[in-house]
Amino acid sequence: MKQERMSAFVKDGRSMLLAYDQGLEHGPSTDFNDTNIDPSFVMELAVKGRFDGVIFQKGVAERFYTGGVPLIVKVNGKSALVKGDPISRQVCSVEYAVSLGAKGIGYTIYLGSEHEAEMFAEFGLIQEQAHERGLPAIAWVYPRGAAITNDTTKEVVSYAARSALELGADAAKIKYTGDPVSFSWAVKAGAGMKVFMSGGPKAPTDEAFLKQVQGAMDAGATGLAVGRNAWQNADPLQMAAELRKVIHERLKVEKPLSTPGSQTP
Amino acid sequence: MKQERMSAFVKDGRSMLLAYDQGLEHGPSTDFNDTNIDPSFVMELAVKGRFDGVIFQKGVAERFYTGGVPLIVKVNGKSALVKGDPISRQVCSVEYAVSLGAKGIGYTIYLGSEHEAEMFAEFGLIQEQAHERGLPAIAWVYPRGAAITNDTTKEVVSYAARSALELGADAAKIKYTGDPVSFSWAVKAGAGMKVFMSGGPKAPTDEAFLKQVQGAMDAGATGLAVGRNAWQNADPLQMAAELRKVIHERLKVEKPLSTPGSQTP
Amino acid sequence: MKQERMSAFVKDGRSMLLAYDQGLEHGPSTDFNDTNIDPSFVMELAVKGRFDGVIFQKGVAERFYTGGVPLIVKVNGKSALVKGDPISRQVCSVEYAVSLGAKGIGYTIYLGSEHEAEMFAEFGLIQEQAHERGLPAIAWVYPRGAAITNDTTKEVVSYAARSALELGADAAKIKYTGDPVSFSWAVKAGAGMKVFMSGGPKAPTDEAFLKQVQGAMDAGATGLAVGRNAWQNADPLQMAAELRKVIHERLKVEKPLSTPGSQTP
Amino acid sequence: MKQERMSAFVKDGRSMLLAYDQGLEHGPSTDFNDTNIDPSFVMELAVKGRFDGVIFQKGVAERFYTGGVPLIVKVNGKSALVKGDPISRQVCSVEYAVSLGAKGIGYTIYLGSEHEAEMFAEFGLIQEQAHERGLPAIAWVYPRGAAITNDTTKEVVSYAARSALELGADAAKIKYTGDPVSFSWAVKAGAGMKVFMSGGPKAPTDEAFLKQVQGAMDAGATGLAVGRNAWQNADPLQMAAELRKVIHERLKVEKPLSTPGSQTP
Amino acid sequence: MKQERMSAFVKDGRSMLLAYDQGLEHGPSTDFNDTNIDPSFVMELAVKGRFDGVIFQKGVAERFYTGGVPLIVKVNGKSALVKGDPISRQVCSVEYAVSLGAKGIGYTIYLGSEHEAEMFAEFGLIQEQAHERGLPAIAWVYPRGAAITNDTTKEVVSYAARSALELGADAAKIKYTGDPVSFSWAVKAGAGMKVFMSGGPKAPTDEAFLKQVQGAMDAGATGLAVGRNAWQNADPLQMAAELRKVIHERLKVEKPLSTPGSQTP
Repeated sequence: MKQERMSAFVKDGRSMLLAYDQGLEHGPSTDFNDTNIDPSFVMELAVKGRFDGVIFQKGVAERFYTGGVPLIVKVNGKSALVKGDPISRQVCSVEYAVSLGAKGIGYTIYLGSEHEAEMFAEFGLIQEQAHERGLPAIAWVYPRGAAITNDTTKEVVSYAARSALELGADAAKIKYTGDPVSFSWAVKAGAGMKVFMSGGPKAPTDEAFLKQVQGAMDAGATGLAVGRNAWQNADPLQMAAELRKVIHERLKVEKPLSTPGSQTP
Repeated sequence: MKQERMSAFVKDGRSMLLAYDQGLEHGPSTDFNDTNIDPSFVMELAVKGRFDGVIFQKGVAERFYTGGVPLIVKVNGKSALVKGDPISRQVCSVEYAVSLGAKGIGYTIYLGSEHEAEMFAEFGLIQEQAHERGLPAIAWVYPRGAAITNDTTKEVVSYAARSALELGADAAKIKYTGDPVSFSWAVKAGAGMKVFMSGGPKAPTDEAFLKQVQGAMDAGATGLAVGRNAWQNADPLQMAAELRKVIHERLKVEKPLSTPGSQTP
Repeated sequence: MKQERMSAFVKDGRSMLLAYDQGLEHGPSTDFNDTNIDPSFVMELAVKGRFDGVIFQKGVAERFYTGGVPLIVKVNGKSALVKGDPISRQVCSVEYAVSLGAKGIGYTIYLGSEHEAEMFAEFGLIQEQAHERGLPAIAWVYPRGAAITNDTTKEVVSYAARSALELGADAAKIKYTGDPVSFSWAVKAGAGMKVFMSGGPKAPTDEAFLKQVQGAMDAGATGLAVGRNAWQNADPLQMAAELRKVIHERLKVEKPLSTPGSQTP
Repeated sequence: MKQERMSAFVKDGRSMLLAYDQGLEHGPSTDFNDTNIDPSFVMELAVKGRFDGVIFQKGVAERFYTGGVPLIVKVNGKSALVKGDPISRQVCSVEYAVSLGAKGIGYTIYLGSEHEAEMFAEFGLIQEQAHERGLPAIAWVYPRGAAITNDTTKEVVSYAARSALELGADAAKIKYTGDPVSFSWAVKAGAGMKVFMSGGPKAPTDEAFLKQVQGAMDAGATGLAVGRNAWQNADPLQMAAELRKVIHERLKVEKPLSTPGSQTP
Repeated sequence: MKQERMSAFVKDGRSMLLAYDQGLEHGPSTDFNDTNIDPSFVMELAVKGRFDGVIFQKGVAERFYTGGVPLIVKVNGKSALVKGDPISRQVCSVEYAVSLGAKGIGYTIYLGSEHEAEMFAEFGLIQEQAHERGLPAIAWVYPRGAAITNDTTKEVVSYAARSALELGADAAKIKYTGDPVSFSWAVKAGAGMKVFMSGGPKAPTDEAFLKQVQGAMDAGATGLAVGRNAWQNADPLQMAAELRKVIHERLKVEKPLSTPGSQTP
């Protein structure tokens, strides 16, 4: 049943998703250049790069989603300009997301934030509304707040995965711990829920990034939700091809690209 | 009428429930090992250990509940990462819990927390929705906040029981006070409402734990809601058998197990 | 019309109500002994003591209300464990209270609390829902907060009464000011709304308590809502009889009881 | 259309309203004496004094409104006992007010309070519900909070009037600035919305008060909403007659009364 | 589809809107003189000045909107009197705005305010309700709060534009950065969403203002939402004509007016 809900995004048990909500979450000047500031570029990349899903906020989905790859609408969001423990509230109804063509609903939970309870409650409702329509609810779980000094420890990352499982998420997007052994504990904590490694900021080299992905897959992850490491890359289609090798073709990472990713936003 | 609502979980006036929401409440690295991190293991234990009920959050219930023992869905939850007075908000509707097969609804109230009022109000609605469907509302009542220096005194534990009664709970899960005499006051405060002793952290020895359970039963408790002292045990089925002896067969605790529980998470 | 709504509780223009929500409001160890911790005891006292009404929280009403005296359900509540300005939120719907047999709806307003606005708004809704069903809305009005240094002055007590009137209460339960002259100002402030003196903590002697009641009745009160001074009394039925004399038979208090109340909780 | 909504209260383009919610807003001991503490006295004054409207909270309206003068129900309220920036929440639904016979809905907005947003939002809903039923929404706008050092300046009073206009009020009750020239700016800011001068505390002499009213009328006000200066007056009917002269008969104020108002609450 | 929603306001791909909610947002004494305090004056200016839309709060729309130019109702608002991070809550329902003749819905978001989440959530609902009725949702996005030291930098202004896009706005009103190069980045961040330059406070000379508008248009803006620089101008119709030249006739700004704008509020 759960498997079925994620089946739009997961064909061979593995999946690579292209995320593009950074314009809201980080701001256009932080993450974008003249090319990737254009959602059409990313929409095209999602299709040509043969990603298994593309992730947009409602506004971008409404204007730029063209089909050809299944859509996940992130239904909450915040800017990077607010200080203090983060809260991200629902800005798109599940019904509206469905009207835009969404096959999955994304929601960010800042685990450990002093506003955690509000996001738990909101996700609880959204998850049920999504399931009512047969759609998966995918939780971005990012630990934050006074108790979190390092958000990539085994303990913290596995807590993120487990929280998503217990709250009824069909999949979780969590940070990589840095090595497959500790990340496999997070996957185990997910107990069969799909676990996606979060791409995070642009890695120093493509190879470094692909090795992280490899590590996550080795640890049992379902795949990757990648943003900046794809559309900030000097050759995004090539990066997509490399990711497919690691994720779908199950090839080991060597030195995949002649030139390390040098593009800056 | 009340008795009827709890009748799925209480056959001979006594009951032992297996609780497994610690992955969310405490985090997987705090409480779990490679075995008990898997909800299947606990689901199987619930059935084979002949528990009278099993307690899951919605996500675990949806993926792992197999029947064979009646289900209680905990409909609120929080992580252990948030500082300050605790608040735990509803993350699962009563309707959704019922759709997962729940025969009982669990809700945690942090009595004395500065957020007490919100949990009182939320429980008030949930209790009515549960009763409308003929399901019992079971209150986990944990006193917290500035006024609580010791949450196992007779005064505090009996206050927890009484609050559950007055708010219309069909059963309460409360901490053990440490001796049957003081705990009997808490049972009296419950005035006929089912009182379950909360298992709490793994006791130093099985015998120590069983003596606590014995004390609670002697004090008039309906039974025990146990988690870590069951699924963290080196031999959980044996522990379940010992608990049945104390709870259902009404045997006195001796030195029940050759080896004290030595497993650590 | 208003008179009609309170007519279940007020037959001869005067009334004595038995209140028993102290288990939640104060805690069982503060107010109860082995006898009065049992709601059956109080329910029986309400009937045998020929009270004009009995006041329970929903949970106690659901399990112990047997009829024989009309029921008021207190629909909000809080524990005594939370620090700071008090707030008491709705824990029982008017509909649910009616389903339990309620003929009146009770609600506590902490006038002057920094949370006053929330209770005003909540009472506003409850009052209308009660009136829709022909039930009276009875306000417990207890002034609290930074502006209140003494909650039994003429000014403060009359403010409590007037607030209840203006907010549409059919009756108010307020503290006694200590003398009939000042209390008559509070009754006047109520402008025809039924005013009940709040029994308060156990008085040093029965005579002292009865003189207070006498004073309130002389001042024009409709009656008394008594808890601890009744069910903490060594002879509660005798106390009930004495109260009837003062309230319904309009006899003057002499030295009514051979022995002063000596029972402690 | 707007004119029509206020037509129950404004016959000749001018209007005098009798306000009596001070029991809640200030407390009975602050504003009342043995006579005016009785709402019947004020109800009778409204009729005999030929006021164009009377303003009550729901509870007073329900018990004392007898008709003979159109009713405005104030649907929010607060006590004077809460410290900090004021908030006044809805305590009466528009529907309920209508059931009590209201021909107008009153609501207080504390402009500049840190809770302004909540009152703006609440008034927004109430205004629409009132208009749906063809009733005017009348805003009491009282500037408060850190930015307000003097709430009777031309700038502050005109801001109050303008806010009411922009939020869709059919009429505003605002403080007098002290002179007709500056008050005419506030009337202009209202842009055709009915502007009522707020009577305020009892003036030292009747003449002083009537001159203020005269000034407001000269400035273009629709009229006056008066409370204490009417029902605290030694001869309220005489004061009503004097007000009619100024407001409806458009006579200039001379030395209208032989004796200055000497009654104290 | 998006284009269609804005088509009432945008005929030739360019648009000039007249905004007049400053009476609420700034206060009448800050921005108005004896002429422009009258909404009729501004309504007439909107028509005679051949603006493409006029922006009012509900109250002004209800009393003064005469047609002849399409209406945008601003559905949230606040006064300038509240200290701290700004919050502006909904004061007009989309349904009510439509009943007043609105062809567009305006909403202000204070990006970066500690109350950002509430406004995001509220705008999320309003945007969907507007779209349901085929109306555009237009976001005023003003960055505020601790992270904002200068709200006209390229980074901050482009963030405002992007946030509006991602949240599903059909158009955004943002501040001008000061030069076309940096503003074109903000237009790019909007990714095809209509971008309106916010007129802001009265510029020192008309020429200075028109050069700003020219800069915004050169940068790819759809147009201008102007208030004070139009109705505070000594010759508003002349200013409207000049704006039409820049915006619709695509003429370059020279020294357009013989006399610089010298009118003060």
